[in-house]
Amino acid sequence: MSQPPQDGPAQGAASHAPNLRIRIVFGDDAMLGPGKADLLDGIRRTGSIAAAGRAMSMSYKRAWSLVEEMNAAFRGPLVRSSRGGAKGGGADLTELGEAVLRHYRDLEDAAASACADRIGAIHALLRDAESRD
Amino acid sequence: MSQPPQDGPAQGAASHAPNLRIRIVFGDDAMLGPGKADLLDGIRRTGSIAAAGRAMSMSYKRAWSLVEEMNAAFRGPLVRSSRGGAKGGGADLTELGEAVLRHYRDLEDAAASACADRIGAIHALLRDAESRD
Repeated sequence: MSQPPQDGPAQGAASHAPNLRIRIVFGDDAMLGPGKADLLDGIRRTGSIAAAGRAMSMSYKRAWSLVEEMNAAFRGPLVRSSRGGAKGGGADLTELGEAVLRHYRDLEDAAASACADRIGAIHALLRDAESRD
Repeated sequence: MSQPPQDGPAQGAASHAPNLRIRIVFGDDAMLGPGKADLLDGIRRTGSIAAAGRAMSMSYKRAWSLVEEMNAAFRGPLVRSSRGGAKGGGADLTELGEAVLRHYRDLEDAAASACADRIGAIHALLRDAESRD
């Protein structure tokens, strides 16, 4: 029973590699998960909420609403934006946004390391663990 | 068979305690997350797919569909059921079901331990980290 070679975690890897998605739920509603983290990453990369949303096939409205949710949940905004400004609505992460995103990515890494054995064990019990492409 | 004295995993805990929800995604579709794990737990506890679903405010149809999905995804069924039998559709976990559930709960524990610092760091950055009730 040889394990399939793992290219590494997450997105870049072959689609059959098991992938952990972690959502932190605070209280009854506030939460941080893969979608918001990827949106923050996209804003950081593109300098635009609209472009970051588009890259995730997310409507502008949805992207804005997630940003507003995050900005309201934390001690200060995670995303600073000039909506409809001269540059057509540029955006970037605040220091707080960078910190939250970094903590979340570190958390993902820590979980992936800590869980690798169990993920492998569950993966090995799948019907087509060997035949997936 | 003594069960640990808990009504359920996350639910009973104080609602403000940060809570990790972990979903393992295998390939493009097969996945195992908190909902399926709680459903397996419920079936184990109640001996009934319907009752387990009800306890999660899930329709009978939805509970059955999740069970069928899991049974199809793994090397064998995780849930053994006598649908509409004399006892009105009893169900329990197979050995494989027990193993998958145990691996998943171990994985949750491992992730929670490994991530405690980061969760605390993110929690401390929430606007109402102190005032939640």
